[in-house]
Amino acid sequence: MLNRVRSAVAHLVSAGGAPPPRPKSPDPPAAPPPAPRSPAAGPGSGAPARAAEARASFSRPTFLQLSPGGLRRADDHAGRAVQSPPDTGRRLPWSTGYAEVINAGKSRHNEDQACCEVVHVEGRRSVSGAAREPSLGQGLCFYYWGLFDGHAGGGAAEMASRLLHRHIREQLKDLVEILQDPTPPPLCLPSTPGAPGPSDASPPGGPQACWPSQKEVTHESLVVGAVENAFRLMDEQMAWERHGHQVDGGCCALVVIYLLGKVYVANAGDSRAIIVRNGEIIPMSREFTPETERQRLQLLGFLKPELLGGEFTHLEFPRRVQPKELGQRVLYRDQNMTGWAYKKIELEDLRFPLVCGEGKKARVMATIGVTRSLGDHSLKVCSSSLPIKPFLSCFPEVRVYDLTQYEHCPDDVLILGTDGLWDVTSDCEVAATVDRVLSAYEPNDPTRYTALAQALVLGARGTPRDRGWRLPNNKLGSGDDISVFVIPLGGPGSYS
Amino acid sequence: MLNRVRSAVAHLVSAGGAPPPRPKSPDPPAAPPPAPRSPAAGPGSGAPARAAEARASFSRPTFLQLSPGGLRRADDHAGRAVQSPPDTGRRLPWSTGYAEVINAGKSRHNEDQACCEVVHVEGRRSVSGAAREPSLGQGLCFYYWGLFDGHAGGGAAEMASRLLHRHIREQLKDLVEILQDPTPPPLCLPSTPGAPGPSDASPPGGPQACWPSQKEVTHESLVVGAVENAFRLMDEQMAWERHGHQVDGGCCALVVIYLLGKVYVANAGDSRAIIVRNGEIIPMSREFTPETERQRLQLLGFLKPELLGGEFTHLEFPRRVQPKELGQRVLYRDQNMTGWAYKKIELEDLRFPLVCGEGKKARVMATIGVTRSLGDHSLKVCSSSLPIKPFLSCFPEVRVYDLTQYEHCPDDVLILGTDGLWDVTSDCEVAATVDRVLSAYEPNDPTRYTALAQALVLGARGTPRDRGWRLPNNKLGSGDDISVFVIPLGGPGSYS
Repeated sequence: MLNRVRSAVAHLVSAGGAPPPRPKSPDPPAAPPPAPRSPAAGPGSGAPARAAEARASFSRPTFLQLSPGGLRRADDHAGRAVQSPPDTGRRLPWSTGYAEVINAGKSRHNEDQACCEVVHVEGRRSVSGAAREPSLGQGLCFYYWGLFDGHAGGGAAEMASRLLHRHIREQLKDLVEILQDPTPPPLCLPSTPGAPGPSDASPPGGPQACWPSQKEVTHESLVVGAVENAFRLMDEQMAWERHGHQVDGGCCALVVIYLLGKVYVANAGDSRAIIVRNGEIIPMSREFTPETERQRLQLLGFLKPELLGGEFTHLEFPRRVQPKELGQRVLYRDQNMTGWAYKKIELEDLRFPLVCGEGKKARVMATIGVTRSLGDHSLKVCSSSLPIKPFLSCFPEVRVYDLTQYEHCPDDVLILGTDGLWDVTSDCEVAATVDRVLSAYEPNDPTRYTALAQALVLGARGTPRDRGWRLPNNKLGSGDDISVFVIPLGGPGSYS
Repeated sequence: MLNRVRSAVAHLVSAGGAPPPRPKSPDPPAAPPPAPRSPAAGPGSGAPARAAEARASFSRPTFLQLSPGGLRRADDHAGRAVQSPPDTGRRLPWSTGYAEVINAGKSRHNEDQACCEVVHVEGRRSVSGAAREPSLGQGLCFYYWGLFDGHAGGGAAEMASRLLHRHIREQLKDLVEILQDPTPPPLCLPSTPGAPGPSDASPPGGPQACWPSQKEVTHESLVVGAVENAFRLMDEQMAWERHGHQVDGGCCALVVIYLLGKVYVANAGDSRAIIVRNGEIIPMSREFTPETERQRLQLLGFLKPELLGGEFTHLEFPRRVQPKELGQRVLYRDQNMTGWAYKKIELEDLRFPLVCGEGKKARVMATIGVTRSLGDHSLKVCSSSLPIKPFLSCFPEVRVYDLTQYEHCPDDVLILGTDGLWDVTSDCEVAATVDRVLSAYEPNDPTRYTALAQALVLGARGTPRDRGWRLPNNKLGSGDDISVFVIPLGGPGSYS
């Protein structure tokens, strides 16, 4: 992730120093692994950088139970030790496996963060106003896993790892009774909990009679809505608190909750979740990047041209148009098109395209390589006061997997990984590693899922030879931070 | 389709009469088949209606070769005879099968239109400015099929059936040489055909050097772009000419072109295309309705609230919120959400929702049931001057099927149908009919595809008993216009 916002970082950390050169075009191709502590983002980039980074205290997930010495080793860009929860300590809920490794020097600290919790939700009593059985007021539990891939600073990822599940809990409080009641959710709740509940029935006649029917809303879609609004509120909290609490940068968020038999996978960014079930791969997320969200971004730039600040054009070109091409016809596509056509170049087509580049080098406003994230409220176009946040969405896409619809064996797993894993590992390679590692352990050995997470991280990181972190096939491994959760869907300890 | 814009029709045809009651809520559930000539859309709705309809001359596709008597029979809502090209006449290109039937009285005429042509594209010579082999200037041929499902009048569908393929031809003229040249398309063409072509190479250094690479554009994506722009230009032409040339209403458009080994399926509306290959169903389009495009519509309403005219809210509710619910919490979702949540009702939530209803009864602005179409430039919210057109897109989604990648047998077909077919027939039922009908004919009998089209139309229309057009399972058949193309992918005459 870090390479993808290098320009932004350079801008942010040099706020008090000399202005950086105006990088209107995307940063140069990342050469993984770069020299440790790249000047753009590392502490070598001058006093302002050091000051900015010093504000945020470095931490790793508490479930790693790192001693001060362990924290130093986890922070070592040269050794890149793979970290997992200690085998001797309390195991993660649901026998979850976890492993992580720091990047190869692209930022001072590991900007990934993670959280794994069992969360109890106490319902607000009599939310619907109706009298209920006392047992229904006893609350709900959900299992929660979150991966947060930070960029342009670690503050947002750290804050999200501490607080996002609390926002989800808060959103679910109103739903505790409703979710446990098999009847369809009420359309309307009283404004004050405990007040008499309104009737759902429409009055006879009147304009309401013209509405053909009332749309049915499922319990599942209430949970989805709760997760969506929790992401929004988390993002709003980051906006309010960003000055007082060092919420620097932004983060992609990949979150899983297990509630009442269903697994909800919420993704905002370019992390990825897949289920490997009986060797079959079931995608549980998709990545949100300038390429996958090109049309949303272009439409916004088209409808709100003031957001482009006269510096960018919402049209896409295969490369930046040159002044000498004025009047000639050049390939382009606009927000309505998936194909390409030729257009006659006018003066405003010479502006920098809102969306440019391909694959990992694709950028919004020549700056950021993901289009959904939490935070990023201070992110500006390099050497400009133009905010990028209006183009970024904090809303996740939520996919639902009904765990009760399939009988799972101990080798069926849900894998969550930040882009450091997926940049160099295909879904099929992950599935092969799942098979290889899990078959080497007894099915009831609870350490097998952490071993699998470690194998996935090691396989993506490579080994330190030939001036780079090399994979067995001699390709370069990922120089990025890598974090992986392995959630068993049918193994020992599941559903416990 | 017709039921879905009944309010709009009522408004349009009553322009000179007394204003209709303010139908802020969607039209009542359609009861197929309605009584012939429903007052809302038929000629019984007063003199202005008659005047408006009289302007447009009624026609059926020329390839049906209908005599005046045949035209009268095709226009008979009581008999609903199934129409196909005569077996004695010149066969449709590519041995295509076709059948259609008029609706059960919902509009005066059949508002579906169809076109099937072989189109020759003469290239503009030396478009790229480079010297080419003479043979490359000889032009291209494409096969073309179009279904146009009109609403609120037949003018738009008729105009599109006459002109859309010409717009496509015009867009392809610049591409004749490029598409036949295996090298990647040039980024840049001279402004004047025949002028020296510019170099594609970027200059060394300068801002261009920062752009990591030039995005590669495929030949296929140029054809897609040409079709997309042809739809846009067709829609613009309807806007210019709508007063002088009786372009009343709008139409959904489902278009297929076959060019250089590939089939391009372009869909704007709620018609549908599927391939049935060896019994397997391959969807080749998706429908664009207020439900499938809810988030695009809501986003537009949110970003451009002036388009809502103070009459609508961009939020969705399961039913219209009532004044007595002010201050209470009601289920809603906004443009960023797929799930539902509760919100406290404020005054502006009492406005009519931009998107409401479910399934075939879903509406934009309580008026229209499709969200992509050509035309509709005069469509207004009932009893209001608020235009609906800004929410409708004329752009198709284009899917590509490479015919050379698979060996097709004579029973493999591409089926195109207006919503009259799909409202009462599932993809699987269509596939079963394909199997049943085609296996009853010799594989080299070219009439088998028209027989299949007729069977599909008959199966969707039902038979006239029990005061309705009944299907064998005693369900109601479609009371709508139905049009079906059957395009053989591997049968006799294919590729000819």
